[in-house]
Amino acid sequence: MEIVRDPLELQRMCATWRREGLRLGFVPTMGYFHAGHLALMDAARAQSDRLVVSLFVNPSQFGPGEDLAAYPRDLERDSRLAAERGAAVLFVPDPEAMYRGPDVWVDVPQVAAHLCGASRPGHFRGVATVVAKLLLLAQPHVAVFGEKDRQQLAVIRAMARQLFLPVEIAGHPIVREADGLAMSSRNVYLTPGERAAAPAIHRGLLRVRDWLLAGERHCAALAGRLREFYAAELPEGRIDYAEFVHPETMTPVAEIDAPVVLAVAVRLGKARLIDNVLLES
Amino acid sequence: MEIVRDPLELQRMCATWRREGLRLGFVPTMGYFHAGHLALMDAARAQSDRLVVSLFVNPSQFGPGEDLAAYPRDLERDSRLAAERGAAVLFVPDPEAMYRGPDVWVDVPQVAAHLCGASRPGHFRGVATVVAKLLLLAQPHVAVFGEKDRQQLAVIRAMARQLFLPVEIAGHPIVREADGLAMSSRNVYLTPGERAAAPAIHRGLLRVRDWLLAGERHCAALAGRLREFYAAELPEGRIDYAEFVHPETMTPVAEIDAPVVLAVAVRLGKARLIDNVLLES
Repeated sequence: MEIVRDPLELQRMCATWRREGLRLGFVPTMGYFHAGHLALMDAARAQSDRLVVSLFVNPSQFGPGEDLAAYPRDLERDSRLAAERGAAVLFVPDPEAMYRGPDVWVDVPQVAAHLCGASRPGHFRGVATVVAKLLLLAQPHVAVFGEKDRQQLAVIRAMARQLFLPVEIAGHPIVREADGLAMSSRNVYLTPGERAAAPAIHRGLLRVRDWLLAGERHCAALAGRLREFYAAELPEGRIDYAEFVHPETMTPVAEIDAPVVLAVAVRLGKARLIDNVLLES
Repeated sequence: MEIVRDPLELQRMCATWRREGLRLGFVPTMGYFHAGHLALMDAARAQSDRLVVSLFVNPSQFGPGEDLAAYPRDLERDSRLAAERGAAVLFVPDPEAMYRGPDVWVDVPQVAAHLCGASRPGHFRGVATVVAKLLLLAQPHVAVFGEKDRQQLAVIRAMARQLFLPVEIAGHPIVREADGLAMSSRNVYLTPGERAAAPAIHRGLLRVRDWLLAGERHCAALAGRLREFYAAELPEGRIDYAEFVHPETMTPVAEIDAPVVLAVAVRLGKARLIDNVLLES
């Protein structure tokens, strides 16, 4: 596996592979790999001849006061893991190489208006911008994103569709710990006590699915019962949001008569954890 | 010459040409061709094996109250002219095909902050967005833009550079009528009297060049003398702006000690005319 730092070198390398008729798979990451990342790499590798993985802690998607400086990093371990998953290249650019000249942003106002976009202004503009750049550098046939970041996936799908990027944006099911907690690099911020309580986030989502199956289709009612569940089962958590939204536009829906995403963000100690579930009517 | 309306058909066609090793030249336009457009086509054709021309009156770059509905159109004549200049394909998409799904914008705040960007809020966001889409569809090796729209050229260069679009953005010198008026589709809005007066716009720019050669390097002084010139020579014109800016960032400069663009916009009757000149120190 080769480590590439220069964006234009990556672009030349991938253009050559494309010209040779090879199929390229791509997984963009911020590093500090856990089993979720490795599952994305396996999925992309299975659909391609060359797997490209990027590791870039993108400054523009962090707000002031967020954890950019503290974001966990371990390039040596990540390199070993990516090589083990069959990556042909690990792209590790410097921020200065990714942002050069007068500023240009890819903005996705509708999809970014709610959920994490509301709590983290500018976050999805940073995500859409850097992912557009990465896709234009790596020129993959397929790029794989985790469904844990469901709004991010919707942002990237809207961006790729509107900009006519000739790439398949594939979602990969959330990878969970044995007790149901969605895997996240930010889980390392949890104390042992918080870690023990955190699976309640996912249990709440499963409860909502049960209530829906039992006939409750009104989102306001379901959200009320979910908040009660969290108040009882996860009293130390502060709910940032718990919203029912359209899977493509991420705008709120009132009733479940087509597939709907229930997305939650919960602050637990120093961590802000997100999870979601797709609810079929 | 083939007329293509479906964006994805254009993308497939151009991808095939690229795979065959052909060099693609591209000229995006809003149609109603004059000699300026034809010069861009000739320049692009001279550097390529296949010339792609697009004709799209892009709604998102017109503000409320601007001339979107009234913008002059003549597809039959334009088709004939493009074919005569050797275009292989004329791309004429419907607005609905170019904007599909949740909205996504390419924003270039710094380069768009002054000049036309200040008078026409949202204009360059519309330009950058549609040109990004067109470049991703046509996948040209070189795209040619007129230097009359100097800020547009700077916007597109910044966009292509930041997004790592693998395309050369070539500027083409302003094509002028015999009396110096910069060619523009909007010149048709001028009455005969306004048309006779309009070349004063360009003469003013040449005067500034003379004053600079004579030793005046302060932009405020030069701008003051230019406004006096227009007050005397073009009393019916209302100056939207007359600014000295950095050629890449389009931000104002105070003194000319490196190449600087002097850009003006003048309202004359129903038309808003722009012109500019590159001043070397």
